[in-house]
Amino acid sequence: MKRSVVYSLCLSLYAPAGFSAETGPLRGFSTESTRTERDWETKFRAVPDPANLRSYMQRLSARPHHVGSPYDKDNAEWILSKFKEWGLDAQIETFDVLFPTPKERALELVEPTRFTAKLEEPTVSTDSTSSQHQEQLPTYNAYSIDGDVTAPLVYVNYGIPEDYDMLDRLGISVKGAIVIARYGGSWRGIKPKVAGEHGAVGCLIYSDPHDDGYFQGEVFPEGAWRNKDGVQRGSVMDMPVYPGDPLTPGVGATKDAKRLPRSEAVTLTKIPVMPISYGDAQPLLAALKGPVAPFAWRGALPMTYHLGPGPAKVHLKLSFNWDLKPIYDVIARIPGATYPDEWIIRGNHHDGWVNGAEDPISGLAPLLEEARGLGILMKQGWKPKRTIILCAWDGEEPGLLGSTEWAEAHAEELQRNAAVYINSDGNGRGYLGVEGSHTLERFINGVARDIDDPESKLSVWKRMQFGRIANAPPADRQEARSRPDLRIAALGSGSDYTAFLDHLGIASVNMGFGGEDGGGIYHSIYDDFYWYTHFADTDFVYGRALAQAAGTTVMRLADAELLPFDFDDLTDTVRRYVDEVKKLATDKRDQIVERNRQIDEGLFAAIEDPRHKMAAPPKEPVPPFLNFAPLDNGLAALQRTSQLYDEALAHATENGGSALARAALREANAKLITVERALTLNDGLPNRPWFKHQIYAPGFYTGYGVKTLPAVRESIEQKDWKLADEEIVKVGKVLENAGEAIQGATSELGRAVK
Amino acid sequence: MKRSVVYSLCLSLYAPAGFSAETGPLRGFSTESTRTERDWETKFRAVPDPANLRSYMQRLSARPHHVGSPYDKDNAEWILSKFKEWGLDAQIETFDVLFPTPKERALELVEPTRFTAKLEEPTVSTDSTSSQHQEQLPTYNAYSIDGDVTAPLVYVNYGIPEDYDMLDRLGISVKGAIVIARYGGSWRGIKPKVAGEHGAVGCLIYSDPHDDGYFQGEVFPEGAWRNKDGVQRGSVMDMPVYPGDPLTPGVGATKDAKRLPRSEAVTLTKIPVMPISYGDAQPLLAALKGPVAPFAWRGALPMTYHLGPGPAKVHLKLSFNWDLKPIYDVIARIPGATYPDEWIIRGNHHDGWVNGAEDPISGLAPLLEEARGLGILMKQGWKPKRTIILCAWDGEEPGLLGSTEWAEAHAEELQRNAAVYINSDGNGRGYLGVEGSHTLERFINGVARDIDDPESKLSVWKRMQFGRIANAPPADRQEARSRPDLRIAALGSGSDYTAFLDHLGIASVNMGFGGEDGGGIYHSIYDDFYWYTHFADTDFVYGRALAQAAGTTVMRLADAELLPFDFDDLTDTVRRYVDEVKKLATDKRDQIVERNRQIDEGLFAAIEDPRHKMAAPPKEPVPPFLNFAPLDNGLAALQRTSQLYDEALAHATENGGSALARAALREANAKLITVERALTLNDGLPNRPWFKHQIYAPGFYTGYGVKTLPAVRESIEQKDWKLADEEIVKVGKVLENAGEAIQGATSELGRAVK
Repeated sequence: MKRSVVYSLCLSLYAPAGFSAETGPLRGFSTESTRTERDWETKFRAVPDPANLRSYMQRLSARPHHVGSPYDKDNAEWILSKFKEWGLDAQIETFDVLFPTPKERALELVEPTRFTAKLEEPTVSTDSTSSQHQEQLPTYNAYSIDGDVTAPLVYVNYGIPEDYDMLDRLGISVKGAIVIARYGGSWRGIKPKVAGEHGAVGCLIYSDPHDDGYFQGEVFPEGAWRNKDGVQRGSVMDMPVYPGDPLTPGVGATKDAKRLPRSEAVTLTKIPVMPISYGDAQPLLAALKGPVAPFAWRGALPMTYHLGPGPAKVHLKLSFNWDLKPIYDVIARIPGATYPDEWIIRGNHHDGWVNGAEDPISGLAPLLEEARGLGILMKQGWKPKRTIILCAWDGEEPGLLGSTEWAEAHAEELQRNAAVYINSDGNGRGYLGVEGSHTLERFINGVARDIDDPESKLSVWKRMQFGRIANAPPADRQEARSRPDLRIAALGSGSDYTAFLDHLGIASVNMGFGGEDGGGIYHSIYDDFYWYTHFADTDFVYGRALAQAAGTTVMRLADAELLPFDFDDLTDTVRRYVDEVKKLATDKRDQIVERNRQIDEGLFAAIEDPRHKMAAPPKEPVPPFLNFAPLDNGLAALQRTSQLYDEALAHATENGGSALARAALREANAKLITVERALTLNDGLPNRPWFKHQIYAPGFYTGYGVKTLPAVRESIEQKDWKLADEEIVKVGKVLENAGEAIQGATSELGRAVK
Repeated sequence: MKRSVVYSLCLSLYAPAGFSAETGPLRGFSTESTRTERDWETKFRAVPDPANLRSYMQRLSARPHHVGSPYDKDNAEWILSKFKEWGLDAQIETFDVLFPTPKERALELVEPTRFTAKLEEPTVSTDSTSSQHQEQLPTYNAYSIDGDVTAPLVYVNYGIPEDYDMLDRLGISVKGAIVIARYGGSWRGIKPKVAGEHGAVGCLIYSDPHDDGYFQGEVFPEGAWRNKDGVQRGSVMDMPVYPGDPLTPGVGATKDAKRLPRSEAVTLTKIPVMPISYGDAQPLLAALKGPVAPFAWRGALPMTYHLGPGPAKVHLKLSFNWDLKPIYDVIARIPGATYPDEWIIRGNHHDGWVNGAEDPISGLAPLLEEARGLGILMKQGWKPKRTIILCAWDGEEPGLLGSTEWAEAHAEELQRNAAVYINSDGNGRGYLGVEGSHTLERFINGVARDIDDPESKLSVWKRMQFGRIANAPPADRQEARSRPDLRIAALGSGSDYTAFLDHLGIASVNMGFGGEDGGGIYHSIYDDFYWYTHFADTDFVYGRALAQAAGTTVMRLADAELLPFDFDDLTDTVRRYVDEVKKLATDKRDQIVERNRQIDEGLFAAIEDPRHKMAAPPKEPVPPFLNFAPLDNGLAALQRTSQLYDEALAHATENGGSALARAALREANAKLITVERALTLNDGLPNRPWFKHQIYAPGFYTGYGVKTLPAVRESIEQKDWKLADEEIVKVGKVLENAGEAIQGATSELGRAVK
């Protein structure tokens, strides 16, 4: 705690704009090894070249490269050849996964008028790859079941649980209906899941121009935004239950793996689902009558949004090929010289929905430059202490297939050896975005101070800080100015870190630049080289910055004498989460008490507008007060052990860290690795045992969006008070376990540098 | 203060939903006279009949009845005849006012393509009066100057001062440009005023479908909302300087009044202005390039909103007939039996922009039923103690002409005699809305408890309370539940109370129902009997409720032994205003300090996106701390004297108010009338001497929107710190003056009931 205060003063008094790199020893390094490390890192950061990034993107996005396509395999082999060309030991690992592709797709309005949806993204003449229709996957949502349904239509806004509460109050049921939801507000797979839970028989998902179209900016090809024909493909697999191959939960989808019959694969949708463009959606929405949609539900189509049901009736017909397809993970290894059994893993996927220039090649190309850079350094004599594994994942788009199957197949050795997983995905312009394990928050702040921002010429850390000061509400501005570490967000899901963090308990970070992008080509045929080089990081300078940031992260983790985990920021963050779940319980209680009172006193009847009927919400039992003491006790343990670790580390780094330099830190490092593992429970979260991390998980009803302390938070959100009380006890114990693991690391560190 | 607490307990413990009328003595009445009053009021409230309201509306909105039209005069004469028929002493008072009507109107896009605006509202076949094109005023903004300009177009959002700050940061100047602003965010007259201040040469104002069109609901004639051709006419006279005839500020526009030459009439616009439909606006807006409009500036047209300037260039040509036109105020009087020189005045205008069913006939028709009801009561022997004056104003739409000229012409006797002015304007469905002098807050709450809400069958007070509980943020809910009086809002401008309250210091209230209306026919040809009877208070039950509420208000004020002013709620409200201006000064200071710091530390340069340039705001001098002690001292005087008055009143109403019943209260009443006068200063507000009230005024840059403690608040908003310090002293003195007036009333009351 002392360190924070001193550091914060330094920052605010002596570190005005322009302050950049840390000058003292790096965390986990001695003064001497810091100097060596900085020299190697400087050499490394000179390597990544925008011209190379551009040429990689041009090559890799030249043709559609989705799972099962010829160019997907071709790309994997090309990546393998490059890894080898740069001197890395690399290979392809193959898995066989369930990956449905469309056989039939039909959508028509059959009442009160007829309209047949186009379901096609046309060629744009200036954009050469947009014409590759033979190789493009049609517009569809992967892992929708087959179906042939005709039913009245209901507009459900984003289709999240609160939206159905509102529909209930408006007296609108979706039972037996086909719902049309707009993209946004949740991960797409939540929409058919919640619709199905409410009795809908089909689900359409469209991109409203308010969220993803002309309301945001000029549309493609004049501008960066989604045009009326652009469709967002994407997976609707129920990933919050488990990601990866639906037929092989928890195990690698190797050739001989035991597979579930498809009928038992619970992550397929329960109702047929299809994504459509706003061009196709408009006639359907315009044919709805019934109540006018609530204010916040209205989009930017030039019409009045109604809810239905009907008179619009639609016919939706979908059938798929349900074959197994091969996926190709390209894996390169640089063996560690000192701690070969401690692994630093770096990944980005290579498969796209179509040409996938932004998603994923803008993130993969930097990874390739990192590989080239590390290869050059090795030739110059650099030897990382730890083993580095570079991964180009296949099958991320359909359901994190490549990373999940690989992580499951190698689960045992990963749990034993993996120290950190570093992920990226698409990359853009603007600010470095970092989410991840808070055991790495301090470390990654250090890296961000050493990377130059291409636009502002400040460090990316300084620009992030200015961005936060500019956007913080006044109450939070002081923290943005003075907290030594900028806070990093927690990881939900939506990219390949999921299996590493949530299933295996490996400390993970995800990074990429963004915030100055504008674009609406996500998962459409227009996410291609033409679009990227006209509207995104057109000169690839942020691609270079990402290669520099991720590569520096990898090197610094691989080279450190002591793994640079920190538990102060973890403790500080978990305290916030504990405060949040307490407040959530209090707020829920207050809301229910207040609403019951309003129902009793007749408020809803009194304010009802007879021309716009709105039923009172149902009365609910008043929640009990929960016993949060186990979380407080766990937090106290975390705080106590974190302080002791800080003291031991301070002791070890006295006198330039000479003790650190000469010590054998194998046991201390091994214990440090166990801390993130200690944050998991083998039984996982309630009703989803695949998710084992107890601090972070994608929300059961958000999909990508993170829920921190998920077992506690979601049981409160879902008003399961008994479960909440039980989970508080479990999670409190998890925090105490983490405290014990930290204590173990402290002891080993003390012993080593005695 | 004690009373409030007890009362609040009563309310929350013993007054559940359904609680309605007050049962104790009415404020200002003895127990006995309360009984008599309640009997008369009950008789009165049985009179208003929806069928009559409907027939009045049908008659009065049958043809266009704007200032200068034959039907305007015809309506006035018909109203006069009805007043007389009902036994009232009535007459027409005529003034001659400047009222421009269009000679030429032309608007065309001349670059990069050509488009000629239609500037016409077509006939809707189901709506019979929409075809009366010969009599309809064309679409225009009254008191725009003549002009013929061709210039590049700039989109300025709502065209309020903050919007120009944003344009400055985006590097866009309107100098020499024609601006296009959307309706909303301010009163319309502010838009050309601010545009002119920034160097624009012309101004277009359009109704965006987001604010007033299909985004809100189905458009006319299928629904209530503005269709693509509907145009909002309206005055753009600079009314925050002075309303009424531009040629006769401060004096009645009688035949022989001294008139300014038109060139010296400062309330005419400085640049030509015209309102247009969104049908006409869309091609102009679509032709703009330049930066994409900020998020909050974008409307619901199906396009990307750009700011310009250009390449769109438009030609705007306007010329007007600048004749004097006669206006016809219809004035009826019921002489007071006890205090004939204390006047209770009730008004609503009768002129419309076209057929004006909603605006103003839906408010005027209830006034007519009130007149009929009072006539019936008189025949049954009812004699009000005070004189009642019923007014049907002409010329409200162009600039509050009829009420202002009448108030100016009769200023001396009004200042001597007028106790209260009660206004209404258009009326709708839902909740009783009341704004006005806080000396009447407690009184008007009492009236609201005695009026039945047609939909909920509760009192309108109870429904208001439920509405506030439902919409209050949790922090304010307790007050909505327990404060004995529901707060009333302060009066800005926009209707005929303005001259009474702001110029003459007569306590005023404005009332009308609303909150469940939806509509976009404001100031268009579609505001007519067809629209009103299909989409508004179609069965006129809220019209009846307004007649009951306003009529009860008039009777209770006219019949009270002691005028029922209260100074507790005034004190409580002024305390809030004082707290607000203090906080405003602090916030302004904090903002400037913070922004200067951000400029100094290079924040704006650091976060600039090179593809979307946004300049740093200018550095500003740090504001001084202001001396608010004079306001605190004035407030203390108000509080002290208010308490003493309460004690005197409590004493006077002991034993059923027998003292009150027998006392000669002439002097006490006369002193009570002076309290609101004491809240004015003869010099008026800085730079606008016509506005004399120091607690309430329409904002110089909001137009309708009220600024409370306007001299202090606006000088802080405009960062004129020296002026703010001076005005704080003046307003503090005004509060002390009011305290003295209250003290005077207290003494007289004590003397009378000794």
